[in-house]
Amino acid sequence: MAKKPSIPKGTRDFTPSEVIKRNYIFEVVKKHFQTFGFQPIETPSFENSETLMGKYGDEGDRLIFKILNSGDYLNKVDDAIYTSRNSSLLTPKISEKALRYDLTVPFARYVVMHQNEIDFPFKRYQIQPVWRADRPQKGRFREFYQCDADVVGSDSLLQEIELVQLYDAVFTELKLGGVNIKLNNRKILSGIAEVIGAQDLLIDFTVALDKLDKIGEEGVKKEMAERGLTPEAIAKVEPLFSLSGSNTEQLQALKELLKDSETGSKGVEELTFIVSAVEEMGLQSAQLSIDVTLARGLNYYTGAIFEVAAPEGVKMGSIGGGGRYDDLTGIFGLKDVSGVGISFGLDRIYLVLEELGLFPESIDRSLQVLCLNFGEKESFAALKLVTALRREGVKADVYPSKAKIQKQFKYANNRNVPYVVLIGEKELEENSFVVKHMESGEQQTYALDAVGNFIAGL
Amino acid sequence: MAKKPSIPKGTRDFTPSEVIKRNYIFEVVKKHFQTFGFQPIETPSFENSETLMGKYGDEGDRLIFKILNSGDYLNKVDDAIYTSRNSSLLTPKISEKALRYDLTVPFARYVVMHQNEIDFPFKRYQIQPVWRADRPQKGRFREFYQCDADVVGSDSLLQEIELVQLYDAVFTELKLGGVNIKLNNRKILSGIAEVIGAQDLLIDFTVALDKLDKIGEEGVKKEMAERGLTPEAIAKVEPLFSLSGSNTEQLQALKELLKDSETGSKGVEELTFIVSAVEEMGLQSAQLSIDVTLARGLNYYTGAIFEVAAPEGVKMGSIGGGGRYDDLTGIFGLKDVSGVGISFGLDRIYLVLEELGLFPESIDRSLQVLCLNFGEKESFAALKLVTALRREGVKADVYPSKAKIQKQFKYANNRNVPYVVLIGEKELEENSFVVKHMESGEQQTYALDAVGNFIAGL
Repeated sequence: MAKKPSIPKGTRDFTPSEVIKRNYIFEVVKKHFQTFGFQPIETPSFENSETLMGKYGDEGDRLIFKILNSGDYLNKVDDAIYTSRNSSLLTPKISEKALRYDLTVPFARYVVMHQNEIDFPFKRYQIQPVWRADRPQKGRFREFYQCDADVVGSDSLLQEIELVQLYDAVFTELKLGGVNIKLNNRKILSGIAEVIGAQDLLIDFTVALDKLDKIGEEGVKKEMAERGLTPEAIAKVEPLFSLSGSNTEQLQALKELLKDSETGSKGVEELTFIVSAVEEMGLQSAQLSIDVTLARGLNYYTGAIFEVAAPEGVKMGSIGGGGRYDDLTGIFGLKDVSGVGISFGLDRIYLVLEELGLFPESIDRSLQVLCLNFGEKESFAALKLVTALRREGVKADVYPSKAKIQKQFKYANNRNVPYVVLIGEKELEENSFVVKHMESGEQQTYALDAVGNFIAGL
Repeated sequence: MAKKPSIPKGTRDFTPSEVIKRNYIFEVVKKHFQTFGFQPIETPSFENSETLMGKYGDEGDRLIFKILNSGDYLNKVDDAIYTSRNSSLLTPKISEKALRYDLTVPFARYVVMHQNEIDFPFKRYQIQPVWRADRPQKGRFREFYQCDADVVGSDSLLQEIELVQLYDAVFTELKLGGVNIKLNNRKILSGIAEVIGAQDLLIDFTVALDKLDKIGEEGVKKEMAERGLTPEAIAKVEPLFSLSGSNTEQLQALKELLKDSETGSKGVEELTFIVSAVEEMGLQSAQLSIDVTLARGLNYYTGAIFEVAAPEGVKMGSIGGGGRYDDLTGIFGLKDVSGVGISFGLDRIYLVLEELGLFPESIDRSLQVLCLNFGEKESFAALKLVTALRREGVKADVYPSKAKIQKQFKYANNRNVPYVVLIGEKELEENSFVVKHMESGEQQTYALDAVGNFIAGL
């Protein structure tokens, strides 16, 4: 009868060790979100379908998980639609809610609904799961956490500087030195398209340029040609491939290249401001590099574009990204609210920390003291001891039954417990307990009414 | 075009202040879960429908949110079912996943799937949202958090003792003194039904008895009669209504009442063991009382039954509950795994703490220092100062634009910032900054290169 249970593809159970390590990352990120003045909000897991549909393109609409209406949901479907037997037509009639696809659209909806109680500029962070009906593959899940910080209601470039510092603060505390914070600006990409005479091919141009890492200079040129850029335009792009040197040198070259484009020059000016401020204040462990090939989410971003790459030598896509968007809340009727934000890629950061052995030692040690169980009277004394330990914040437990001592020690080993306490008949008589340090094997005896001595030495 | 956005009924947005207060409760609960040796797990938000359906009764099945299959989901529906146009028949054909309805069934599924890697007894905690398509009403939501701690794989009564202590530890730290931990045992209810000759009416008998608080003694007797209990049986129940005195006195009376029932006597024995152990070790701020009318989830529990009532004078249903169940994982094919667990009612605990003013003062203060913005050069110096503060863990920010000073002070007030920093032209020249303490109005000047002096005084 009972079939072996399973979980839906693309979803995960998290074991204690995994939850603890994930929470470690969340806590570090949250701490720095807070010192940077961001405030937490949470939004419902599902939204009205109309809030989400049409916000992520056709592909996004398909990947949104829809929730079936409750009760006799077919009752309200009209005959013509039902008999057409067309899934796309039927869906909006039998489903009015959908699972959150990202945190940005619900955030925009939140800002519009709560605009009268929010003090702008509003710096919010949000760490919640999202769901996508994507085909699951290595590292891609149907349920995963997003971890976003955004500022809305301010177009000051101070925010961009802060966000670079925020990445640096988080990765420094995670001991993940040497991440590369790549920075670009939509205005620079527009400017380049302008000066090479390919304004109308901006998207094609940037999609091709974005692949420089993967397909190399010749590949990019070939793709640009295929996408309709003229040989003259491609020739003018040439200097971008050989951009090199320090950020200042690259900015100098870009300034020259874009001198005839107002938009492009504005982009260079913005980048220069951000880079020089960040350099003057200094980063703790990250590096900041200009990368004019960076184009992620181009349709969306209007100013700065960020992406964070793992330290050299670690094979991993980006572990964070973001940018500035000028009209976050327009879709819900609130105009002229500029925003800028970044996100942290939890799952990938987890994999990088695991690969590099950067999780703190014994982070998943869930029990410091285990008292063995030698019978009812003895275990009762043990529980008293454990009660005292717990009230001092020590993670402690009593083995619940009088199992074979070997079995109890095995349990202690499996749970990686550093101290095992023994209270047998003899100890009970002498009003004492024996502590065995599992690593060294050493044993020490304490008086039951002097638990403080033991705690002090933990 | 842009319709005013809204959220689905029964769901909530949480503002920064609410998230911070909710997290405060979670953190206290988690801390004590951990000192008591519980380990965290997390399970997916949605499960395969077959994992959930049929586990919560017909009513539960109706209240489970189903997720529509992706793509052309009608494609796989056979004609006969489609033309029947019956929602209940169609649902399993177009939906294979459903949102978690509670944490217990997913936990049972987890234990079965991970049985080979778990070290039993397994003490797990889980704090995650669940979803129910219930009619929303005051205090009842369609999305809410559950917060559970369970031990599986041990039938030791030490667990029951610990769980009482765990409630006490959490509510003591939340400064919610005087909660009443009510304790009963399924075996006592069975024993009573047995001695009054109403074994086959156990459920009817307990459902009626459970209402004693609400409808009084006469009401209960009337309902028992309506539910088919004989006048003789009802007369024999009489002593239960007048059970009073200390736990020990009540246990004595129950022992006498149930002396002819083996099951009932076992229940009294178990309760006596738990109560005397708890009393010997002492609770910090909660009280423990035997309550033979307590019957929550009777179909489910097989031993101890717990329920926590808010302190006297606070009108609120139970703020926690739980019990022992002998066959948690049998539904998934793993037999003989006994479990016992408790849960904390987050939303109600939140309301009680709010009503009694028990949240720590300034808990939702999200910013300690705000630097005003007097222009580009000044704000740059301010950002340097803020960077230094943040690296010391101080929540600090710079107002992002050179708005009117009045507006900036208003922002500081709205965010309840205790210290406002001013760096104007004069301060910049003198390499200093002025700190205004917002409550007292006092101002103090510091050197920009001696930020440590300011931090030390925070």
